[in-house]
Amino acid sequence: MTQGSNLLQLKRLGIDTYKEAVIYLRTDCHMCRSEGFEVHARVRVTLGGKSILATLNTLEGDLLQQGEASLSNYAWELLGANDGDPVQLSHPNPLQSLSFVRSKIYGNSLKKDEIKSIIGDIALGRYSDIHIAAFLTACAGGRLNEQEVTSLTESMIEGGQKLTWSVDTVVDKHCVGGLPGNRTTPIIVPIVTAFGLTMPKTSSRAITSPAGTADTMETLAPVDLDLKAMKRVVEQEQGCIVWGGSVSLSPADDILIGVERAMDLDSEGQLVASMLSKKISVSSTHVLIDIPVGPTAKVRSFEMAHTLEHLFQVVAQKIGLNLSIILSDGSQPVGRGIGPALEAWDILAVLQNKSEAPQDLRERALILAGNILEFSPKVAVGEGRKIAEDILESGKAFEKFQKICEAQGGLREPPVAKYTHSILSPQRGCVANINNRQLARLAKLAGAPHDKAAGVELHVPLRTLVDKGEPLVTIHAESKGELSYALSLLDQIPEIIQVEAGE
Amino acid sequence: MTQGSNLLQLKRLGIDTYKEAVIYLRTDCHMCRSEGFEVHARVRVTLGGKSILATLNTLEGDLLQQGEASLSNYAWELLGANDGDPVQLSHPNPLQSLSFVRSKIYGNSLKKDEIKSIIGDIALGRYSDIHIAAFLTACAGGRLNEQEVTSLTESMIEGGQKLTWSVDTVVDKHCVGGLPGNRTTPIIVPIVTAFGLTMPKTSSRAITSPAGTADTMETLAPVDLDLKAMKRVVEQEQGCIVWGGSVSLSPADDILIGVERAMDLDSEGQLVASMLSKKISVSSTHVLIDIPVGPTAKVRSFEMAHTLEHLFQVVAQKIGLNLSIILSDGSQPVGRGIGPALEAWDILAVLQNKSEAPQDLRERALILAGNILEFSPKVAVGEGRKIAEDILESGKAFEKFQKICEAQGGLREPPVAKYTHSILSPQRGCVANINNRQLARLAKLAGAPHDKAAGVELHVPLRTLVDKGEPLVTIHAESKGELSYALSLLDQIPEIIQVEAGE
Repeated sequence: MTQGSNLLQLKRLGIDTYKEAVIYLRTDCHMCRSEGFEVHARVRVTLGGKSILATLNTLEGDLLQQGEASLSNYAWELLGANDGDPVQLSHPNPLQSLSFVRSKIYGNSLKKDEIKSIIGDIALGRYSDIHIAAFLTACAGGRLNEQEVTSLTESMIEGGQKLTWSVDTVVDKHCVGGLPGNRTTPIIVPIVTAFGLTMPKTSSRAITSPAGTADTMETLAPVDLDLKAMKRVVEQEQGCIVWGGSVSLSPADDILIGVERAMDLDSEGQLVASMLSKKISVSSTHVLIDIPVGPTAKVRSFEMAHTLEHLFQVVAQKIGLNLSIILSDGSQPVGRGIGPALEAWDILAVLQNKSEAPQDLRERALILAGNILEFSPKVAVGEGRKIAEDILESGKAFEKFQKICEAQGGLREPPVAKYTHSILSPQRGCVANINNRQLARLAKLAGAPHDKAAGVELHVPLRTLVDKGEPLVTIHAESKGELSYALSLLDQIPEIIQVEAGE
Repeated sequence: MTQGSNLLQLKRLGIDTYKEAVIYLRTDCHMCRSEGFEVHARVRVTLGGKSILATLNTLEGDLLQQGEASLSNYAWELLGANDGDPVQLSHPNPLQSLSFVRSKIYGNSLKKDEIKSIIGDIALGRYSDIHIAAFLTACAGGRLNEQEVTSLTESMIEGGQKLTWSVDTVVDKHCVGGLPGNRTTPIIVPIVTAFGLTMPKTSSRAITSPAGTADTMETLAPVDLDLKAMKRVVEQEQGCIVWGGSVSLSPADDILIGVERAMDLDSEGQLVASMLSKKISVSSTHVLIDIPVGPTAKVRSFEMAHTLEHLFQVVAQKIGLNLSIILSDGSQPVGRGIGPALEAWDILAVLQNKSEAPQDLRERALILAGNILEFSPKVAVGEGRKIAEDILESGKAFEKFQKICEAQGGLREPPVAKYTHSILSPQRGCVANINNRQLARLAKLAGAPHDKAAGVELHVPLRTLVDKGEPLVTIHAESKGELSYALSLLDQIPEIIQVEAGE
């Protein structure tokens, strides 16, 4: 095989396939013939010193000339390609780490090195979506043991960047999702940093929920900070609230999350590894974990919560992290808004000590902030909440929040949706039940989280008395299409809020 | 949402993504904005009365104008689209069957209706490759119980076409793969049909092996017959050897196999369901199953073989199929050739009673054919093999084979590879061990099964005495590139054939 005989010239078609590397060749490409490449095959693409694996799609017609090839945008970026660059194609060596994935599928436990090799290949973009889906599925449903989750955590840490700080104590918190509107981070960070602790908070975007903290925070200030910018903000303000994905703390995890979203699946081992690896990457020393428990929350029972709690503690101990875990009430949404901007308005109301601020969100934030303050040797156990409340009420928390937002690129006002529709109570009675999952689904149907202003506003917490015709929830949407789409599905999800007749 | 506001005009770009439905929209498409569609999202595409689900890829540049959309070829076919057709896009209803897939991932067993709903959605092209990979993984590694495998089998039968015959006894055979070169079907069918039994044989293409029976048979005659053509051949000749995929006996299974190939994974429950459903679809009444057992065969131990045997028997009984199972020696390849054309040459040698015909292939075919003949009330137990041998030696089998090939579209000569390279024995000694898996891998590296003439020729069966420098295997390739690629990997797979020193 002479050098050059398998060179093709790159032509940018600008096809965005999300995080799947795809190579486009003509259906009658001479090289497909001579090398025996078939559509859907995995092909090794080399440009300069870099190689990636890509899935082959073929093109009829004249989008490409003989001798030309194109790449999906993701593959284009991985290779750092330019129009006209010559790429070399070859058969990929079988990926050894895929045999470990198969071994896991057959129920074997994986060794540290095997997991490291899988995560390394994923971070380098060598897995197709099919391979990633197989790996995630094989690990879901409690099929990773404690040692494997530890290895997964360590592998994710090793694959990413790491931040270091000049202080000894670096605090952090994480909420195991599933509770709409539970957006305490932007309240806690200013309280804790105003006290003097260091809290460099990275948050995630939504995986399967209507909003992640990063989505919500983005309506108030930029969150796409790189590592250097994040470090600058934290050195200046002792804290930040940024998107973890943009600082490449765990490139493999970001890819895994993309496929998890498509599968609408959260796996327990993956969750623990994803979360703890990010805490280690930002050099956190003390972490508080909030696990809301409720029949329609992500964690549905105390049994599940204790399993998760145990897994968190075991792995944290192995990787040398000081962990404190709180199980909280997950029976209903927190605050009033569900969706990025709606949640942001709730946060602002609490920080500004407004009388109409949602008290449940305020109370949760104070409890969690208090627990974090107690990581400090200066705060006695049991005194944290009071100190947190003083900082919030004095206005120091809001002042700090504004400074953090400015340091991140500027405080801004969250958008307001153009279209709204309220659902009214069919009768006089008492709010007996709220289905978190269906409420979250409704918010997503209305456009959250991609439409920042979209979502659902909940007017009546559990056990509220309502009159017939009183609004229960208001749907917010940025487009008429999405609003009517969400409304059209309402008939199929009738029992979002159950009002029991009576006084 | 007014009708027409979300109509786009189709423009064919001719992108082949294999069996994944993809819709291409402009990155700045107004509808993406108004409907909130994001890259990688699943979108419902409606044309006339038909709807499909497709994964969204976006395009920069001017491949599409505003108001235009394109589809991958698979999606194009599913919708029966024409250039310029108007398609309507909408948010898909959540696929209920995906919640059953998630339930399976969490280790629950699935009910008949749930499996039926999954298979139905897959057959309609509603699953993305990610969803299919998750389903396959969740079912692999022995995670389907007997009832689930039965339901899977029945669901696949219900989703496909069904053939019926005018005779009471319809025989069939199936070999549980993994043994390179074990291509007995094209020998057995002519023997059994020459005797007078009806054997409408559908075979598969390779999933993870260097050749499936359909790939091999295709080098001798057309195998892509539709149901009508297949019926005509069988009515005329009592038998056929065609590709099962082209007669749509189980559309879901064909899609599953495509993803299994990308994962390089065979699951036991899937295997049983795939195989038995196809036998019921062609209305077989009596089926012989051959399970080769050997350390490097697909079934590695008698324990695995018995598990599989039991699963086959349980499901066969539930769906009313008469099953006979043979466990055979799987310690080494059968015949000399591994790869479509090379295996075809072996078959011809046996059918033509040539002295150089591989005796192991001949013997296996006779044993299996004999067992099938004993399904006939006219043949006493123990007499089948002798009758089969008489039919083969008399030339009646080859005569019948030619007639079947002619009826399928014409007998043809298998191709011969342009490039070969022999691997010589490093010493005088005895062939002590042959690694089937590595031999199969070598044949695939050389280009099999997509290059029909490519593969590996094995010169020395187990326990043969060889001289130093005597050829052990010859690699055949259609291109220089593939030959040198296969050779370049030889160093990494040293012990394909182990020759022990001595007389």
